[in-house]
Amino acid sequence: MELKTYLAERKALIDQALEKYLPPVEGQGARVTVAMRYSLMAGGKRLRPILCLAAAEAVGGNVSEALPVACALEMIHTYSLIHDDLPAMDDDDLRRGQPTCHKKFDEATAILAGDGLLTEAFVIMSQVAQGLSGRNAVVLEVINLIAQAAGYRGMVGGQMADLLAEGQSLGLPQIEAIHSLKTGALLTAAVRSGALLGGGSPKAVAHLTRYGQCFGLAFQITDDLLDVEGQAAEMGKAPGMDLLRQKATYPGILGVETARQQARQLVSQAKMELAALGPEAEPLRELVQYLLIRRH
Amino acid sequence: MELKTYLAERKALIDQALEKYLPPVEGQGARVTVAMRYSLMAGGKRLRPILCLAAAEAVGGNVSEALPVACALEMIHTYSLIHDDLPAMDDDDLRRGQPTCHKKFDEATAILAGDGLLTEAFVIMSQVAQGLSGRNAVVLEVINLIAQAAGYRGMVGGQMADLLAEGQSLGLPQIEAIHSLKTGALLTAAVRSGALLGGGSPKAVAHLTRYGQCFGLAFQITDDLLDVEGQAAEMGKAPGMDLLRQKATYPGILGVETARQQARQLVSQAKMELAALGPEAEPLRELVQYLLIRRH
Repeated sequence: MELKTYLAERKALIDQALEKYLPPVEGQGARVTVAMRYSLMAGGKRLRPILCLAAAEAVGGNVSEALPVACALEMIHTYSLIHDDLPAMDDDDLRRGQPTCHKKFDEATAILAGDGLLTEAFVIMSQVAQGLSGRNAVVLEVINLIAQAAGYRGMVGGQMADLLAEGQSLGLPQIEAIHSLKTGALLTAAVRSGALLGGGSPKAVAHLTRYGQCFGLAFQITDDLLDVEGQAAEMGKAPGMDLLRQKATYPGILGVETARQQARQLVSQAKMELAALGPEAEPLRELVQYLLIRRH
Repeated sequence: MELKTYLAERKALIDQALEKYLPPVEGQGARVTVAMRYSLMAGGKRLRPILCLAAAEAVGGNVSEALPVACALEMIHTYSLIHDDLPAMDDDDLRRGQPTCHKKFDEATAILAGDGLLTEAFVIMSQVAQGLSGRNAVVLEVINLIAQAAGYRGMVGGQMADLLAEGQSLGLPQIEAIHSLKTGALLTAAVRSGALLGGGSPKAVAHLTRYGQCFGLAFQITDDLLDVEGQAAEMGKAPGMDLLRQKATYPGILGVETARQQARQLVSQAKMELAALGPEAEPLRELVQYLLIRRH
């Protein structure tokens, strides 16, 4: 398979579905729905929904049945970016080369746009079941695990810990804990929810969940490496920002070479988790391998 | 029945359940869970959960089966208060006589505490089904209607419209539209979800939903009247704040007497919706009647 084509096709499928789920941009209070659309359609790579669909595919499931949850995952991811970019948090003016939501609109609108996207994700997920007769229990399990990954046990807790850690000297275990909450939890939830919606066996779901955990950690390490290496133009944000903010990073603690090696080990472990799966799991194999060579 | 005793007993039941659902206050990122607890246990009247339980009761349902969703409603209400109080929004320093979340902690923590409470509501609701075998479809319907009421179709849209309307001269239809989104949607969802979880017939659910709509509007009008009449000490916030901010209010547009009359009409309409229900609906009758005499 050609990963580049696969990613482009999946991104197009997801963008089209997101368009369908996006709220109307007229009527009272429409400013918030305009802001939701602005951030959601700002050119994201759609990594979480792509992972969700690929996991459904890997266990022989129907991609279209996982599509609503995939869209919900992207909404939750986008909400977290909008809130993390706020002046009271990471105070970022640019995201993917464009003004962040509070810069384009204002702080109140950005807070509400984030709230609106987070909530809409649950509207969409609770409607999934209508297309999946007799599978209400699986849908409820998926809603539960995604909510856990997004809340204080996951992303919210991770962002809090990350903010509290600024300027502090952290050890590797603390950094890993922060990243596993802040980034890893939703990536893992994306893979696990896809596996569940695809009808995977408990054993397959467990393997794919561990794949998701390795993917999440490898993703963060390679993200840190990209930041250090400073691909400013390609990333659409200023390089070395983590360094400026004294945020602890993997290369900062381990050194660039050891961090790279750790990423390679995680990628190989992730691929081992897919060993029992057939050619349907090929996209997941290529996706995790891609982390080692990506430049944005 | 003695409403005061009923309210005290139900508040105690709900507070006890909320304690059980509250996250631990230790570990990495614990600051956010401390803030979640601070705002959630800040002495709210628990009106939304009480309405939810009373609606379940009114259709002959089991109160304990509606309790998790009742707690989730209070978490969503508290999240909305935390975010609405932020400097970028209504910029309030006090809530129920205590420092608001961002004053007690800081803005970043308050944003995250709100996000955490909103998300946790869905964790709890998606777990309800475990105690209600064979009722997954009802639980999904409840999650869906509560998410719709909380998002851009409801509270989020209402708060946006309210912020955009500041300093503008609004007509009655616009004010009603804003309030029905901002306050009415979740109150109505509380009653409707209770009726559904209690196993109400479609007809009973429809009547109770209309009860909830009348309740929501009557609640807002009497809230506006309290603000104008300025029960500063009892409300724990400065009187006349809406006036200061040039927010449009019912008494401001209709005059105090006409606003009072409208509230009375809505209360009587709400009670008519309960006509077909028996003595189990007595708490709902008393609750809406109470709006006309409350002082806080």
